[in-house]
Amino acid sequence: MTTATGEDVLELLRAELPSSRIRTDQVTRDAYSRDDAEWAPYELPIAVVLPESVAEVAAAVRAAAAAGVHVVPRGAGTGLSGGANAVAGCIVLSLERMTAVLEIDEAERFVVAQAGVLNDALRAAVAERGLWYPPDPASSAISTIGGNAATNAGGICCVKYGVTRDYVLGMKVVLADGEVVTLGRTTAKGVVGYDLTQLLVGSEGTLGVIVELTLRLLPLGGREERAVVGSFPSLSAAGVAVAAITAAGLIPSALELIDRTCLRAVDEWQQLGLPHEVDTLLLAKVDDPGAAGEDAADRIAALMSRSGAVTVERATDPDEVNRLFRARRLAYPALERLGPVLTEDVCVPRAAVPEMLARIQAAADDNDVTIANIAHAGDGNLHPLIIAPEGDDAAKARAKVAFDRIVDDCVALGGTVTGEHGVGLLKLPGAAAELSPRVLAMHRAVKDALDPHGILNPGKAFPG
Amino acid sequence: MTTATGEDVLELLRAELPSSRIRTDQVTRDAYSRDDAEWAPYELPIAVVLPESVAEVAAAVRAAAAAGVHVVPRGAGTGLSGGANAVAGCIVLSLERMTAVLEIDEAERFVVAQAGVLNDALRAAVAERGLWYPPDPASSAISTIGGNAATNAGGICCVKYGVTRDYVLGMKVVLADGEVVTLGRTTAKGVVGYDLTQLLVGSEGTLGVIVELTLRLLPLGGREERAVVGSFPSLSAAGVAVAAITAAGLIPSALELIDRTCLRAVDEWQQLGLPHEVDTLLLAKVDDPGAAGEDAADRIAALMSRSGAVTVERATDPDEVNRLFRARRLAYPALERLGPVLTEDVCVPRAAVPEMLARIQAAADDNDVTIANIAHAGDGNLHPLIIAPEGDDAAKARAKVAFDRIVDDCVALGGTVTGEHGVGLLKLPGAAAELSPRVLAMHRAVKDALDPHGILNPGKAFPG
Repeated sequence: MTTATGEDVLELLRAELPSSRIRTDQVTRDAYSRDDAEWAPYELPIAVVLPESVAEVAAAVRAAAAAGVHVVPRGAGTGLSGGANAVAGCIVLSLERMTAVLEIDEAERFVVAQAGVLNDALRAAVAERGLWYPPDPASSAISTIGGNAATNAGGICCVKYGVTRDYVLGMKVVLADGEVVTLGRTTAKGVVGYDLTQLLVGSEGTLGVIVELTLRLLPLGGREERAVVGSFPSLSAAGVAVAAITAAGLIPSALELIDRTCLRAVDEWQQLGLPHEVDTLLLAKVDDPGAAGEDAADRIAALMSRSGAVTVERATDPDEVNRLFRARRLAYPALERLGPVLTEDVCVPRAAVPEMLARIQAAADDNDVTIANIAHAGDGNLHPLIIAPEGDDAAKARAKVAFDRIVDDCVALGGTVTGEHGVGLLKLPGAAAELSPRVLAMHRAVKDALDPHGILNPGKAFPG
Repeated sequence: MTTATGEDVLELLRAELPSSRIRTDQVTRDAYSRDDAEWAPYELPIAVVLPESVAEVAAAVRAAAAAGVHVVPRGAGTGLSGGANAVAGCIVLSLERMTAVLEIDEAERFVVAQAGVLNDALRAAVAERGLWYPPDPASSAISTIGGNAATNAGGICCVKYGVTRDYVLGMKVVLADGEVVTLGRTTAKGVVGYDLTQLLVGSEGTLGVIVELTLRLLPLGGREERAVVGSFPSLSAAGVAVAAITAAGLIPSALELIDRTCLRAVDEWQQLGLPHEVDTLLLAKVDDPGAAGEDAADRIAALMSRSGAVTVERATDPDEVNRLFRARRLAYPALERLGPVLTEDVCVPRAAVPEMLARIQAAADDNDVTIANIAHAGDGNLHPLIIAPEGDDAAKARAKVAFDRIVDDCVALGGTVTGEHGVGLLKLPGAAAELSPRVLAMHRAVKDALDPHGILNPGKAFPG
């Protein structure tokens, strides 16, 4: 990086972009300084740039590169790892104004859309044409498809339908010097050269700014949702049910777990009248149509009962399905009422879920912090939610100790330190523990190859 | 590359490896000089190395790197693009002796296996444990999973189940200096750092030598195969049926097309008694169980009839399903009886399949060559098979002209020049036409980052 002043880059930006695209006021700079990761460090950016076209993104990156100023790209800022947090002296480049759905190809089943389209808006647009975009992060109402791709976002349906990566066919990318390239394809298959599209997915804005995506779609029809929700007297009984469902070769379209702490928080807030003997809820969906779906739901219900479920509820009517999944939807906001939530995101082998949950509880007990659990149990992807009361610095410090211990336990059980939220800043130490020095050197070599001057989102995605 | 003599590397190899691992005789060097790509250039290697462990692969690559000698890695040599063809002064490193299935995890549904395990052997090993490895290249009986991953092999079930890439969770890789790294994970999800696993898949041995793979599996049970085979009076009628099946939102587990030239070759060889009014066969499978599968098969059969099929045959009994697909299995060997077959591998948007088939026929007519067509029609992935009689150099030259024209037509229709066989050597000009100069520069930068001395499989995978 050359030494540069904020004024250099602002002058270049103003020469290239309409003034409505550049914000330097304190309020805006503060609002765009961080994502939704609690306690990840951040700085105030020099400016926030809000481009409205690929050409404007390219111009902004060119200006930053010319001035030797860092660029932190950002979708909606809903990330939970600090990947979009501003670094000292940077500009934040928000893709939020790039919201055009450019093309929907019904015959080939793909959509081309700008990076700033919200996940739910994309789903709605393609649903009108009888098509379905499966990836469903919990943030789907407020997160962008560009951010989803940059972080390889997961969600609830992953257990059957995979993650964002599995739907990205191609993309338009602004490289670190401002040049625009098109990667990937629109066809169903293709093996020309290295899969740079897949390299960019999950690279957290460190290798290029994703400005446009070509996403594979599935037919909307042909599925029928059935919910099966079991209430269990203990976490371990629910863990046995998860293992039994997997071992039976069943692939539900959702298999979520909510623990006692979450359930109590939801119940205290919304008075759902959850019986007090319920310790853990296991929420499954299957979406095979007709008799096959009915059979799968029967088998899941039977396996829940056999594993010790106190009650097992079934639903097929869409409103009833939604009612049964209500506690899942309310869990996160219910917990946020108790204080800032530090969201963990470890992923362990499915068979290790009960052991990992026990270790999480031990980390909570030993550090005198509250940890609630939401889990994509069918994927072994756990979200321990560590809560420290607002303004209690001692509790915050203990929460951080618990966070680190959970990461260590996850690695010890053969897991990975981030299942779907990304490394960002919060998981840099975890990534350093998980990846070997030579693999980290490969990361550095790839980064240097594609961003030789280190312009894009420095210090994110992998430990330096 | 430093200048080196063959003796330097042989001396180093002999110091590091048992003598049974090193072959320098003319017959072996010739046998390992090329894969199954007709007419791709090749040289004789200095030696063929047949390591039996990861440590031996690493030692061989270290020796080659020290001597500045190129390494061409190879599975079973069944590739169709020349990706495994020897270059001047290289050693060929065959993984064929690394055939151990190391671990099958039933709970987590993955297998860890060495690169030299044959695809069918892997399927058999996991099937014994109630698990299924979907990727099914036509070469599955003779190709290795290491080669499948290095080329991101496709197959027949891709239309529903995806390609090799979709099943690779992680791998052990010997890098260009002989160091061994582990990439990826064993968990269902994970987003730590760049997805170097996916970068290696399909990189044709140019970035590292894949020595071990962790592959995701599906449950073996829960599927029931039903075949629906329609015979059509014209290619265009079959094309209409493909479009109708896709538009109806049906996702068959196979949707294959065989044209008149293939059918005649099969019939002349095996006297199947195919009626002469049959111009094109469209072969579909569905594998949804029970009523859903029956319904899908009904709908496919109805759409075939409505699109002009002369006959539509149905089968559910496994032997009958196999009988209906017999012409598909026999097509390639039947054509090989007519002369050396140059296999094309273009992939176009599904809607462009009829137009692409028409252009292929025009390329055949204008160049006076025989071109037969097998197509993974449901993916838009066509395999025009260009046949030139043995020893007819003029026909061979005309075939080459037709080959290039088909590639150009594919790009003009929005397709990609290789759907599943890879760039190797045969598709270097096509890749140069498809990829922009800057995207090619990105390839070169990534290659230089991970193999700075250019040791591994030089000149393959992307045009220099």
